[in-house]
Amino acid sequence: MNSHATLGILGGMGPAAGIDLCRKIVDQHPASRDQDHIPFILYSVPQIPDRTEALLHDGASPLDGMLDGVHALEQSGAGCIAIACNTAHAWLDALRHRTRLPVLDVVEAVASELSACVAPGAPIGLMATEGTHHANVYRPRLEALGYRFVQAAEPLAHQALVNEGIRLTKAGDVRRGGEALAMAMEQLLAAGAQRVILGCTEIPVALATCETPLGRFGLDASAALARACIAWSLAHEPPAHA
Amino acid sequence: MNSHATLGILGGMGPAAGIDLCRKIVDQHPASRDQDHIPFILYSVPQIPDRTEALLHDGASPLDGMLDGVHALEQSGAGCIAIACNTAHAWLDALRHRTRLPVLDVVEAVASELSACVAPGAPIGLMATEGTHHANVYRPRLEALGYRFVQAAEPLAHQALVNEGIRLTKAGDVRRGGEALAMAMEQLLAAGAQRVILGCTEIPVALATCETPLGRFGLDASAALARACIAWSLAHEPPAHA
Repeated sequence: MNSHATLGILGGMGPAAGIDLCRKIVDQHPASRDQDHIPFILYSVPQIPDRTEALLHDGASPLDGMLDGVHALEQSGAGCIAIACNTAHAWLDALRHRTRLPVLDVVEAVASELSACVAPGAPIGLMATEGTHHANVYRPRLEALGYRFVQAAEPLAHQALVNEGIRLTKAGDVRRGGEALAMAMEQLLAAGAQRVILGCTEIPVALATCETPLGRFGLDASAALARACIAWSLAHEPPAHA
Repeated sequence: MNSHATLGILGGMGPAAGIDLCRKIVDQHPASRDQDHIPFILYSVPQIPDRTEALLHDGASPLDGMLDGVHALEQSGAGCIAIACNTAHAWLDALRHRTRLPVLDVVEAVASELSACVAPGAPIGLMATEGTHHANVYRPRLEALGYRFVQAAEPLAHQALVNEGIRLTKAGDVRRGGEALAMAMEQLLAAGAQRVILGCTEIPVALATCETPLGRFGLDASAALARACIAWSLAHEPPAHA
């Protein structure tokens, strides 16, 4: 019955970010009737331990919780996995070793879109959790492609602002979160970034609530992952029983 | 690890409506960190045949497609099912006979909230698909509680406006859908309705995009179902392995 293969979205990290990825998949694949939309299953069990706590402070590992989600998605008929959390990509290889399904990669999705809007060698910025920075999710791979990462003039104060913006957003105070994140983005643009990767799924959710003129300088990693999800679904056959 | 039981959301009918229900669950249960949010799994495989087509024009039944979703949610660890489509509630009893999980009921959720805002005997309106009207999803049960349904002055033209609003929303033209639905709501209020049940999951999605002063006269069935979902999750234990 399905003409597209079903996506498995590993969400809940946090819940708003998983929902945002699903909304972007629906919005970016316009359809005139329900039946033409991309099928997906969103696993949003946010009791997975905090990723940054695990990476920076030796907190409980989120891997088992993520694997529970991956296995639930496998059993539900998903044909691939997309992880709606940039920091969780620190465990991408570990997940890939423990599932028979392909796992999409947000860094690959971002790299492919970055090449369409700035030249290799261009100065770029990255807004992300401390966990994503610490685990080198983005930097080595994009530097290998020739991009150069700029830092804000006051890196510690900058990261504190990003952390606070993400924390407020996760706690539901999305408007104040957006204000903090817009200020943080401005600092990276002032430092010369031609594009700023919005490399935490909460960031585009929050920035969308404040009318910032900076929006066009951001590269929304969630939107890039959503487009990779759509491309995967359209390129693959649904399972035989569907 | 979980402190709450996991909800299974049967979505995809349409995809925006399922996502909207999840968003309302997250927004209406504020939490200061990811781990305190309600866990849920959203099954959004929109290839389920159209519900109104099945009810009115002898189209393919959506029951098998819905059962696929229910069984996938069962296997993924969901502890109950909520159906993010009012028209699909025409198959509520059939679904309840085919699953061991409790299935929440949008009509019960609406009835419980209606009693808090209008007196029994009050005139109310219902905006819904022709399928929901035809299958008597709401009317007999709310009339049994003493409510009186008013009709728009020109019922055929009114339903055509509702249909067009829902169709535009499903096709992604949410703004024009919202304008049509706001006009339709005004017709029911002009006919004396004290509250209008927004009894199709697309309707609140669309109305939210147009700044209508009528909003406070609407009773959003999705929001009522979201609150019933939260109450269920908080009242139930997670499975032992979680």
